[in-house]
Amino acid sequence: MTTAAFTDLSRLCIHTITTKPWNIEAAARNYSSKGVKGITVWRDTLAGRDIRKTGNMLRDSGLKAVSLCRGGFFPSKDRERRRNAIDDNRRAINEAFELGTDLIVLVCGADPAQSLEDSRRQIHDGIAEVLPDACAAGVRLAIEPLHPMYADTRSAINTIAQANDMAESLKSPFAGVAVDVYHLWWDPLLEAGIERCGRNDNLFAFHICDWKSPTVDILNDRGLMGEGCIPLRKIRSWVEEAGFNGFVEVEIFSDIWWKQDQTMFLEKIVTAYKEHA
Amino acid sequence: MTTAAFTDLSRLCIHTITTKPWNIEAAARNYSSKGVKGITVWRDTLAGRDIRKTGNMLRDSGLKAVSLCRGGFFPSKDRERRRNAIDDNRRAINEAFELGTDLIVLVCGADPAQSLEDSRRQIHDGIAEVLPDACAAGVRLAIEPLHPMYADTRSAINTIAQANDMAESLKSPFAGVAVDVYHLWWDPLLEAGIERCGRNDNLFAFHICDWKSPTVDILNDRGLMGEGCIPLRKIRSWVEEAGFNGFVEVEIFSDIWWKQDQTMFLEKIVTAYKEHA
Repeated sequence: MTTAAFTDLSRLCIHTITTKPWNIEAAARNYSSKGVKGITVWRDTLAGRDIRKTGNMLRDSGLKAVSLCRGGFFPSKDRERRRNAIDDNRRAINEAFELGTDLIVLVCGADPAQSLEDSRRQIHDGIAEVLPDACAAGVRLAIEPLHPMYADTRSAINTIAQANDMAESLKSPFAGVAVDVYHLWWDPLLEAGIERCGRNDNLFAFHICDWKSPTVDILNDRGLMGEGCIPLRKIRSWVEEAGFNGFVEVEIFSDIWWKQDQTMFLEKIVTAYKEHA
Repeated sequence: MTTAAFTDLSRLCIHTITTKPWNIEAAARNYSSKGVKGITVWRDTLAGRDIRKTGNMLRDSGLKAVSLCRGGFFPSKDRERRRNAIDDNRRAINEAFELGTDLIVLVCGADPAQSLEDSRRQIHDGIAEVLPDACAAGVRLAIEPLHPMYADTRSAINTIAQANDMAESLKSPFAGVAVDVYHLWWDPLLEAGIERCGRNDNLFAFHICDWKSPTVDILNDRGLMGEGCIPLRKIRSWVEEAGFNGFVEVEIFSDIWWKQDQTMFLEKIVTAYKEHA
């Protein structure tokens, strides 16, 4: 555990959802003025905008568009919904290309009306179907395992071993894994799973926040780094030993933080990043 | 998946917490009048009572005391708290003996102030310390893996593989595993883990309820069987293939159901047990 604290912001990326009250222009302006170097763009922030121009605006602000959030949600018992999901993922790939990012995070999906095994098969088939488009656009797809508390409707991929299995089965340099500490910190096989990503050269993204005790909302009560019990520095050491040296992405859904002044929150993110990430 | 539906209540057990508004006398009277054959007693219901007499009351009502809930909560960064936990588990063993049940369910505990690995070591050491007492009292201890959303404060044992590892490391016929579908339904290694319990003859308990979509409370929004997405019949088939033929225990924490008329709820439990368990 000799991973050093960050002393500059060259690897700090923030997800637009983290500062949800800001539109993408305000987020870009404020992140940039604080010296943040990366932004992960949630698709809702692009509504009604020229995506190519928005990408240029980000770059003009000194921000790298680290990834687009999110594709996925492939499974459904209903064939037409599965078809719509494929179409939507193709749109996401196009949006990523227009924006100028080479990465999409996949929240793979699940349908409580069918078995997890069926959902997983549909996830595999869905990703396989859009992979040629992703490859043509130069956009990689990162399978993000989600916490088991989201296995009913959000993702049937709930451990890093499952994400590795899925990514490897797709046999493409455009299919990999996103590690989010919130979803995986409890996983006794996390270190081994991250090592496996490293061996396969498919660790595409690293997301951070914290797990608060108590957590009062199943979706929107994530903590700022340092507010909870996730061994962040330790997990970052595993990620870096696996060869990852990309952006460290702050992704916090929090009704509490969204109610605060976002400029103050951004300052706290920067401080927490240096002290705890 | 040829496991047949239950047509009688000879294997139905209900946890007193499921009908929390009832005290243990009301629970016993009502369960018994419906033909339920087993009861799992939560310790809070024994407060202020002669436990031996309460055990006799249950037997006189035609109820088997299937288990006592709950022991555990071994880990703490604080040595005195760990000591107190040992004492409390010894009290629980004595209460189980007095009540006349041969099983205690362990919610093993976790302390967010320390690593999960430290908590797991303290769980092992805590169980090992009270095992001789359990053995002397003829009381078995069932390690219940808890859902990963409880890894911060309730249990550092979150998969069936971890529960099996822990139970086997204790090398005693008095240490085994409790399978609760709510905690484990998402686990891709659940079937294999249940088989492993069967090989080791240490599957001590089987708890059921359902996972609702959406789940609005992290603790008290469990569903009645059939209200959610857990493949109950399938998991029961695995449990029975592993040689388990004991009570099927209904354990539901639900602010919604606790607000309803409990006699009506009990009727729904019986119906749901026959239709979905």
